[in-house]
Amino acid sequence: MTATTLWSKGGAHDPTIARYEAGRNAALDALLARHDLWGSLAHARMLRAIGWLTAGEWRALAGALRALLAEAEVGNFALAPGEEDVHSAIEHRLVERVGPAGSKVHLGRSRNDQVLLALRLYAREALPAMALAALDTAAALADLAARHEWTPMPGYTHMQRAMLSSVGLWAAAHAEALLDDCVALAAAHTLSDQMPLGSAAAYGVPLPLDRELVARLLGFARVHTNVLAAGNARGKIEAATVQALALVMLDLSKFAQDVLLFTTSEYAFLQAPAELCDGSSIMPQKRNLSALELVRARAQTVIALQGQMLSTLAGLPSGYNMDYQETKAPFLEALALCRDSLEVARLFAVGIEPQPDRLAAACTPELFATDAAYGLARAGTPFREAYRTVAQGAGGEAAGDLGQRLRARTSTGAPGNLGLPTLARRIAHERTAWEARRAHLASALRQLVSDQAERSSVSSTTSSSASPAAEAPHDPSQPFAAPGI
Amino acid sequence: MTATTLWSKGGAHDPTIARYEAGRNAALDALLARHDLWGSLAHARMLRAIGWLTAGEWRALAGALRALLAEAEVGNFALAPGEEDVHSAIEHRLVERVGPAGSKVHLGRSRNDQVLLALRLYAREALPAMALAALDTAAALADLAARHEWTPMPGYTHMQRAMLSSVGLWAAAHAEALLDDCVALAAAHTLSDQMPLGSAAAYGVPLPLDRELVARLLGFARVHTNVLAAGNARGKIEAATVQALALVMLDLSKFAQDVLLFTTSEYAFLQAPAELCDGSSIMPQKRNLSALELVRARAQTVIALQGQMLSTLAGLPSGYNMDYQETKAPFLEALALCRDSLEVARLFAVGIEPQPDRLAAACTPELFATDAAYGLARAGTPFREAYRTVAQGAGGEAAGDLGQRLRARTSTGAPGNLGLPTLARRIAHERTAWEARRAHLASALRQLVSDQAERSSVSSTTSSSASPAAEAPHDPSQPFAAPGI
Amino acid sequence: MTATTLWSKGGAHDPTIARYEAGRNAALDALLARHDLWGSLAHARMLRAIGWLTAGEWRALAGALRALLAEAEVGNFALAPGEEDVHSAIEHRLVERVGPAGSKVHLGRSRNDQVLLALRLYAREALPAMALAALDTAAALADLAARHEWTPMPGYTHMQRAMLSSVGLWAAAHAEALLDDCVALAAAHTLSDQMPLGSAAAYGVPLPLDRELVARLLGFARVHTNVLAAGNARGKIEAATVQALALVMLDLSKFAQDVLLFTTSEYAFLQAPAELCDGSSIMPQKRNLSALELVRARAQTVIALQGQMLSTLAGLPSGYNMDYQETKAPFLEALALCRDSLEVARLFAVGIEPQPDRLAAACTPELFATDAAYGLARAGTPFREAYRTVAQGAGGEAAGDLGQRLRARTSTGAPGNLGLPTLARRIAHERTAWEARRAHLASALRQLVSDQAERSSVSSTTSSSASPAAEAPHDPSQPFAAPGI
Amino acid sequence: MTATTLWSKGGAHDPTIARYEAGRNAALDALLARHDLWGSLAHARMLRAIGWLTAGEWRALAGALRALLAEAEVGNFALAPGEEDVHSAIEHRLVERVGPAGSKVHLGRSRNDQVLLALRLYAREALPAMALAALDTAAALADLAARHEWTPMPGYTHMQRAMLSSVGLWAAAHAEALLDDCVALAAAHTLSDQMPLGSAAAYGVPLPLDRELVARLLGFARVHTNVLAAGNARGKIEAATVQALALVMLDLSKFAQDVLLFTTSEYAFLQAPAELCDGSSIMPQKRNLSALELVRARAQTVIALQGQMLSTLAGLPSGYNMDYQETKAPFLEALALCRDSLEVARLFAVGIEPQPDRLAAACTPELFATDAAYGLARAGTPFREAYRTVAQGAGGEAAGDLGQRLRARTSTGAPGNLGLPTLARRIAHERTAWEARRAHLASALRQLVSDQAERSSVSSTTSSSASPAAEAPHDPSQPFAAPGI
Repeated sequence: MTATTLWSKGGAHDPTIARYEAGRNAALDALLARHDLWGSLAHARMLRAIGWLTAGEWRALAGALRALLAEAEVGNFALAPGEEDVHSAIEHRLVERVGPAGSKVHLGRSRNDQVLLALRLYAREALPAMALAALDTAAALADLAARHEWTPMPGYTHMQRAMLSSVGLWAAAHAEALLDDCVALAAAHTLSDQMPLGSAAAYGVPLPLDRELVARLLGFARVHTNVLAAGNARGKIEAATVQALALVMLDLSKFAQDVLLFTTSEYAFLQAPAELCDGSSIMPQKRNLSALELVRARAQTVIALQGQMLSTLAGLPSGYNMDYQETKAPFLEALALCRDSLEVARLFAVGIEPQPDRLAAACTPELFATDAAYGLARAGTPFREAYRTVAQGAGGEAAGDLGQRLRARTSTGAPGNLGLPTLARRIAHERTAWEARRAHLASALRQLVSDQAERSSVSSTTSSSASPAAEAPHDPSQPFAAPGI
Repeated sequence: MTATTLWSKGGAHDPTIARYEAGRNAALDALLARHDLWGSLAHARMLRAIGWLTAGEWRALAGALRALLAEAEVGNFALAPGEEDVHSAIEHRLVERVGPAGSKVHLGRSRNDQVLLALRLYAREALPAMALAALDTAAALADLAARHEWTPMPGYTHMQRAMLSSVGLWAAAHAEALLDDCVALAAAHTLSDQMPLGSAAAYGVPLPLDRELVARLLGFARVHTNVLAAGNARGKIEAATVQALALVMLDLSKFAQDVLLFTTSEYAFLQAPAELCDGSSIMPQKRNLSALELVRARAQTVIALQGQMLSTLAGLPSGYNMDYQETKAPFLEALALCRDSLEVARLFAVGIEPQPDRLAAACTPELFATDAAYGLARAGTPFREAYRTVAQGAGGEAAGDLGQRLRARTSTGAPGNLGLPTLARRIAHERTAWEARRAHLASALRQLVSDQAERSSVSSTTSSSASPAAEAPHDPSQPFAAPGI
Repeated sequence: MTATTLWSKGGAHDPTIARYEAGRNAALDALLARHDLWGSLAHARMLRAIGWLTAGEWRALAGALRALLAEAEVGNFALAPGEEDVHSAIEHRLVERVGPAGSKVHLGRSRNDQVLLALRLYAREALPAMALAALDTAAALADLAARHEWTPMPGYTHMQRAMLSSVGLWAAAHAEALLDDCVALAAAHTLSDQMPLGSAAAYGVPLPLDRELVARLLGFARVHTNVLAAGNARGKIEAATVQALALVMLDLSKFAQDVLLFTTSEYAFLQAPAELCDGSSIMPQKRNLSALELVRARAQTVIALQGQMLSTLAGLPSGYNMDYQETKAPFLEALALCRDSLEVARLFAVGIEPQPDRLAAACTPELFATDAAYGLARAGTPFREAYRTVAQGAGGEAAGDLGQRLRARTSTGAPGNLGLPTLARRIAHERTAWEARRAHLASALRQLVSDQAERSSVSSTTSSSASPAAEAPHDPSQPFAAPGI
Repeated sequence: MTATTLWSKGGAHDPTIARYEAGRNAALDALLARHDLWGSLAHARMLRAIGWLTAGEWRALAGALRALLAEAEVGNFALAPGEEDVHSAIEHRLVERVGPAGSKVHLGRSRNDQVLLALRLYAREALPAMALAALDTAAALADLAARHEWTPMPGYTHMQRAMLSSVGLWAAAHAEALLDDCVALAAAHTLSDQMPLGSAAAYGVPLPLDRELVARLLGFARVHTNVLAAGNARGKIEAATVQALALVMLDLSKFAQDVLLFTTSEYAFLQAPAELCDGSSIMPQKRNLSALELVRARAQTVIALQGQMLSTLAGLPSGYNMDYQETKAPFLEALALCRDSLEVARLFAVGIEPQPDRLAAACTPELFATDAAYGLARAGTPFREAYRTVAQGAGGEAAGDLGQRLRARTSTGAPGNLGLPTLARRIAHERTAWEARRAHLASALRQLVSDQAERSSVSSTTSSSASPAAEAPHDPSQPFAAPGI
């Protein structure tokens, strides 16, 4: 195994140590192959621009990188046994395919800044996908709210019946929560949108690297300026991403817990479609909503993952520490769990069927005790006295026409004034913003991989006006792009 | 005790249960008195505007609330034994001072949305203060970087000497990390900038509450529309705030660990002023940097607090749950810990003295092994071969002129090109943005407490053009204000 | 403030730093006053025995320590402003009362080992109290089980009705879970039962301290031998205690969640007494089981506290680090939360009233689908085929006589064979073991504080046969006492 | 996929849901194949004993199970695509091999209690292995201590030089910490040593299962009596195991951090062998102790895993919840991480070379400031005055003969009196206890798999005197076996 490490100096490496260091790295790194290849292509392009690659070397490297990228795109990039990480694997293959020039792509880079770059690109790809998935789920919930805007439902506090609510209010509340999360996702995106390459081992190198060019080629909003700051942000920016995911999972866990309660025999407010349920190996009658129980549990998993990342990072000194490696798995795992949980929640939002009869029957008089007290208060009784009068009396009033009751709640956002068109506009607004983020990255990468990038970028150091990526800000004095827009 | 609860219906309350439920609430709630009073004033103003308070009731209530606010401003608002929470305490005092009208301020409110509002206002006050404290610390670090821009220092990876660095790079890196955190703080501010009042127990009330007016009076960017979404966000938005604080603490813990290492006898790169150190009860010679050890430990505390908040919230069903109460202490505690830790870090950034002789002596040849390899590579040797040549040789080259070495690292953000003016501009830019946030809240509250708010708000339901708070957006369809700007 | 620190050397201490270092220490340390005084008394006794105190100094010190102890016993020991910690406070008062001899009690000690000792004694006092409280709650649950051994109840899996259960099975299950926790509490006790004094700052001192004598005087099972191991265990042994508490809280949270579900309108299986419930400030009808919601939330708090302690400790180098101080508050807080939560759970175990009619009505045919499948299997149908037959059919069979159904479940621990006498014996057995632990400490302390200890201990280094504490093992080669017995 | 689930009733299962529920289960469950097969063999044996299997069915099943076990022992048991879990996979294969009788092994079992059993057996196999690995590492540290009992070394507090220490004290302290952990591992073993089978879906079944027989066949100390308690303990007992592992990791992280510090250029107290180090892809000179950095990070991982497990479990209602499944991966992962980390630490304990010259040179006068103060105190100066005299003076005294200095520290456990023979005895004592636990399980399983178990167990319900497993207690009234012995 030792023969293939980039740092081998000839001595043996204890196999227990090697295995311990490898951990699950090979499997995880395969997920980063495309991102490392994009980064390598941009780096090579820059080395050519500053004259550290000859035209021939660049052509050879670019061709090989594009070929590897095509293989990775179809999932044909797996680490061989003994390949320490994706960065080593790519360097090996480049050397195999184009000879010594292959290793020149490592000039001016360290694996430390390579992995920084790969993880940032991964986040910039994953976060728009995540936000758009959240918006899909929100849209499904908004649809459910629209279908059942006037279906009454008891509202609970302390798990006890409290006040009149509606399926519309309930479903739209879950949609709105996901919209809030887009703010946190956007902040994570802003932090990830800083180009770290050129920091090398976090202290720079004595080469005239053009970091702005690399940022432009990869569509980054800015260079992560201070090279040590770039290195020190390893893990932290990924943790900030997982923090945002934890908020999403929090919302999904509440939705899951609500649906789990509301589909019990005792509530029976909602019915879940059989194809989303599973059964028991011993009890023939069971229809379990196991997937929602897992959403609930995986919320705790993602919360733990962000805590793990942060605890691992706290107290580490400046500069690369191997501890950072342990933040890669939780980052990738949290992204996958959250993405899948959003899709599960969406399936349930689409599939659950409210049961109007059961819901109406549960709207018992106690829900209207506050209304009764307000009635007395409107007629002049001080509220605390009215409260006690009602509390000592029948404990409520006959429900009457539930629809009319709902319509009487007219303040912004109350059951009689849900503002569903506004909700729809907010979803649309967020979708536009996230599709723009996604398109911006895709366009930069397309140009990078195609000939366009090649042609344009060479001249970009002298004039950026012709650059197809010119819309991306790259002045390091530029403040962060505004998340949420 | 039971006689004083807002919900007493005459029966006895088990004293063990009462004590268990009270927990540390009295002490915590005293911190929220001003915020609850501001919210109560705005709510009363709105009740007057929609005709649920007479002019006389409003005058009486407004007078009493302003008087209580004046007392709270000077720290004279403590909960009496048996007062369940700040909301009950305020209602009691209003009744004492203005009679039955005092309890009318609770019309259309639940303690659930009262505490939501108080916590949002607390966050809107605390977050700008926090960001400005972070910027003060960043500025102190930037000053240190400027004073020692060209003081060489070894750069470490894996706690081993790696490459040439500088005190300037090191100090500026810590400053830049804190700037990144402003993005996360801004996202937390955006989430907190949603007005929750009017959600009552999370299902609204059958009263025509004017939530937009309350938002305007308190300078909120928007109404937290869906009333159940507002209620369900309890704890979550506070947790999002503490997540941002965890990132700040992460950066401070790295700074602390660096200084702790660099002030050991073995490194002796930095000297800390005696007044920031303390001693041992047994060892006369000791000068300990205990405060920085506590910064390191409290980073883990804040990380744990955010995890605690999130774990407590996950899996709770919709609607108020008493569990939410357990998120108040970690929220308030994390804000205090982070604020104080920033100040401690600032004192050290100002006070530590780099020791140039020790630093230069530590810049041993091994730091230049990569430079040597690049030299061979520049001369045509493939980098991997150059690497092995250097590795098997002397392991570096003589340091030579360290200043010249630093100046040769010219890429953006490298030791020879730190971009300190850009850093200063970014700090200034953030400062402006946060001072604007702080001023916006202060101005709204000033108007609310003075006569101006009274005069303008009454007419605001028919015309907002004259409103002194008109610059605050309050259209619920409005997207979130952009954090980071 | 600086004038009063034990380590003051004359210079000023920055007040921000002093405040930051003080944190909540004064309030926390007041809880440790008795324990520190016991430790001081034993240490002074040992200094006398090895000849570092004169007879007169010892008499003066012992008198003053006993007087302070009497004050602390009645809660009259609070730290004055500027007193850094309980150790400093005690030394100050001793000097005030007996002059220079007062400070001699610090000979051979560091605050590092003083606080180690105080925390161990605190744990040795708290853990038996905790276990006995857990056993009280278990006994209340066992009583409930006995009263309702044959009250049928649906058993749930995945929150869906699954199989026939009973109130007896349910209540006894919660009791048995608490018995399991006694194993974990006992392990924490064993770890805490190691005497750390004499480790000083973790490297020992050049004085002939008799650590075995101190262990014997304080009733410890053994000396914590290696002085650096004793110092390095700071926080870890406390964390191990909180880990055990987390298991207790886990069980209580499950009990709380069950009762919260079973007291909803929808289940209505249990009724909670009014005095254990509270109300809403807006909804007159509400009876909330807020205390149980807090038990559920505080389970997450205690879980977070143990995580915080462990994360704070991980990665610290050997020897005292100020970070350790941050583990004191979570340790003390977790003990208080767990003790109170046990009492709340006990009150509910005593107070809740099962509703047999509602419970029986919920024992619907689906609970017997497995029984039906077993019936077919008994008659020769392969179980998977029987399973599918039942699943496609009516989904169960008529409940019939539920009592008879319960009695048919005869395996050990099944609803028809709960083994309540065995449960009672296990509770009694644990109670005996924990009362012995409690009595052992109490007896040692009684002797220490009274004249007996004084007389006996002086001679104990030559002959332990006359020692009233002779039953306590103190041979450092002795293995740990067995937890659980 | 749906066709193969044990609970299929003919309908389709949404593929997204199926994939979400499957998660990483297939890979994890392969680790449990042996344990499930042992449990299945014991269960079948019991079904035969109570007459629910014919002699022929038993022979067929036993043969097939033993064959599968032989395959699993050599690692040839992997789940096929579409096999939901190891329990389903085994049932499938039994049916394939012996026809309908194959599915009879599921009689009276649920997958809920099957996995409970498999996890308990896994813990009973893993915990002795873990403890023995910890003892191996402790022994390596004790050897290091013996080799360097009198090698002086500075002792640190607050990362500053504090007092004289020795390599012997330092290494033995780490050994002793691991001995403490054996107490926690033993408590986890005691909790795991309860036989859960027969609890089925946690409510028992109407079959006369002989749970005591199963316990005896598998060498369990007792039956986990209450069937709901057994079901509710899912995850909790595994979490208790991981809590113990977290303590082990805590100790290893401290050792790692010490070695990382002491191998820096600045300290240079220890030298690590090249084969335990690795290098950098960019810096030819680097020798990094990456494995120890990973130990440090993985301590935080294991801490997070236990927190994740506990947080996931808290607040779940009684009875099986799918959330439990999410505790399996952290349990298995933590065991693997801890086992490997112990081995890494052992390799370093064996391989590191103390550098006596560097160590002695670092024993500067400041280490003896306390000694100087004690000298003055011995001569009659009150200690606080002596302390201030020394603090204001030269800050220590010349080191003199360091060996003599060490020998002057004679209290139990101090550098001059390490008690290494006692340490060796404690290690040996623990080793004996853990080897007995390991042998007890191995012997029961050997008998179960061979003919002996078959012959003896059939008669065991009437007479246990002939049982080869008779030494295992199985009276449910029996208290827990004592951990630590």
